[in-house]
Amino acid sequence: MKNKRNTSSYYIDGILEGDKFVLSKAITLVESSLKDDIQLSIRILRGVSSQAKSSKRIGITGVPGVGKSTFIESFGTYLIGQGKKIAVLAIDPSSNLSGGSILGDKTRMNSLSRNEQAFIRPSPTRNTLGGVTNHTRENILLCEAAGYDTIIVETVGVGQSETLVRGMVDFFLLLMLPGAGDDLQGIKKGIMEMADGILINKADGQNLQKAKQAMTDYKNALHLFSKASSGWSPQVKICSALENTGIEQAWGMIADHHQLMSENGSLDKLRKEQNLAWFKEQIAHTLIGHIFANDENLRARNQLEQEVLSGKLSPKEAIVQLTEQLFGQDSFKSQK
Amino acid sequence: MKNKRNTSSYYIDGILEGDKFVLSKAITLVESSLKDDIQLSIRILRGVSSQAKSSKRIGITGVPGVGKSTFIESFGTYLIGQGKKIAVLAIDPSSNLSGGSILGDKTRMNSLSRNEQAFIRPSPTRNTLGGVTNHTRENILLCEAAGYDTIIVETVGVGQSETLVRGMVDFFLLLMLPGAGDDLQGIKKGIMEMADGILINKADGQNLQKAKQAMTDYKNALHLFSKASSGWSPQVKICSALENTGIEQAWGMIADHHQLMSENGSLDKLRKEQNLAWFKEQIAHTLIGHIFANDENLRARNQLEQEVLSGKLSPKEAIVQLTEQLFGQDSFKSQK
Repeated sequence: MKNKRNTSSYYIDGILEGDKFVLSKAITLVESSLKDDIQLSIRILRGVSSQAKSSKRIGITGVPGVGKSTFIESFGTYLIGQGKKIAVLAIDPSSNLSGGSILGDKTRMNSLSRNEQAFIRPSPTRNTLGGVTNHTRENILLCEAAGYDTIIVETVGVGQSETLVRGMVDFFLLLMLPGAGDDLQGIKKGIMEMADGILINKADGQNLQKAKQAMTDYKNALHLFSKASSGWSPQVKICSALENTGIEQAWGMIADHHQLMSENGSLDKLRKEQNLAWFKEQIAHTLIGHIFANDENLRARNQLEQEVLSGKLSPKEAIVQLTEQLFGQDSFKSQK
Repeated sequence: MKNKRNTSSYYIDGILEGDKFVLSKAITLVESSLKDDIQLSIRILRGVSSQAKSSKRIGITGVPGVGKSTFIESFGTYLIGQGKKIAVLAIDPSSNLSGGSILGDKTRMNSLSRNEQAFIRPSPTRNTLGGVTNHTRENILLCEAAGYDTIIVETVGVGQSETLVRGMVDFFLLLMLPGAGDDLQGIKKGIMEMADGILINKADGQNLQKAKQAMTDYKNALHLFSKASSGWSPQVKICSALENTGIEQAWGMIADHHQLMSENGSLDKLRKEQNLAWFKEQIAHTLIGHIFANDENLRARNQLEQEVLSGKLSPKEAIVQLTEQLFGQDSFKSQK
């Protein structure tokens, strides 16, 4: 069984029919780094791409404890009630190859994971030498081809994965806790300014007033940032995923954004630019991955990094030494 | 004369004596990409590095019209009055090889540029294939060795050069105009969150009240961001470079920051991390520069970028094609 490969038609047909089992297998294939798998996955992606439905791609981030799972469960269930099909992909920089820790067990989103109209899948992130390798972009395309019209990409708001997610979604939603200005929020600098919307969760019980105050504070803060070229001004809303309040308003904000961006052409422009930016980034990662797959090159690099960190070598000296090691003594002649 | 090269001792001795002419020539050498110049400049940098005085490295940014030149003139003159020696380096991403447009003529900082205790120099930024090539880091070291104890690195607050500057200074100062929340401020998203301090300039005449209000607004906004690991909380001050008010307070904020960072070890840690980060970035730029110095590789890359942008190829397909072109058909085997 292991040696018998399914054809690209098997995958393409299965995905287009919305078969979750085939979709899962295709995602596994896309995440493989074996040459045959890459070639097959490219045929699959090409086969389904013309069929990809227009969908809403939503990134969701927030610190642990903000209630992301509960929110996605509540939000997803609401959307399914509106006739939508939801795919939840999670990027977890702390996970290893064997699976993601965010969504390693689906018990986190108990009711959503059992719903026929929902598809939940972690995207393990690998730290390769050239940076983060991630296939969530391709997974989005596969889910769209399988009929999922609302794609949620979830990440933890503490690392560098937010920039990754921001670069692959239309709308970037930041979940916050009531109690604005609290240092405990732990949101990394710069993340607030990437948000298209801020949603203050846990706006229930005695937190309601604090949440409303936080909403005002964040509105004032966002007002200081310059407007995006799309013409969209980031919004701030409150909700309680636990009590199922504010969910409709959260969706309304995302739908408004989608409508504005579709009508003025910004959505198409954004997605094309995201593709180009991703390609450019991947060039660097791929080249570096190739060059430092060589053990000798890798050792030289690690040694030089230590010498830079200890102050023994300046970065400039280290670069010259590394370049000479990789390309020979005359390497600087080729640089203009 | 052109063929007669000065020795590294000529440069090292001249710099350590604080000779501005020799310092200028050394900077020109550091900015050269000729092999002999690179080797000589490394000897010079090594020769002066043990002598480099501890200095304050200050990055200054703000949109055109915020009054950066007037502020630096006023600020620099104040510091010289305090017995300091000031070097002003400018990073201008819009400049070309022939010189920087920010400081192309020194008439911008008329009195400072004529002061014996000040050294003003633009750093042209080249857009190489792998990204921005910049030698300001090395220029900082040379200026420090020449006895300049306060290094100002200036940039325009509209591009990607701020991240570059943030990565080479101890204190990042954002100049703003009175009238907070005004979309016309045009500061790129994320820049406010990189600032160690915000200084609202032009707080004079009928702008004074608006400046004070802006100070309150920015303080509230900064309060929402999480604290830096150094323990420093960003400050907001007002000043009028024109009327020479608030200059001492601006310096006080920078001096406080320096003291805190020195005492708790954050400054040493920051500078080491900056060196390592720069080395890692330069690895990517250098490798890409080498590979795409080849015309055939460059054409292939440009062609693929067009196809990604037009939607004809997915980024993944484009990467596979480019990798095969660069490393041959079996290239994916070497990737783990």
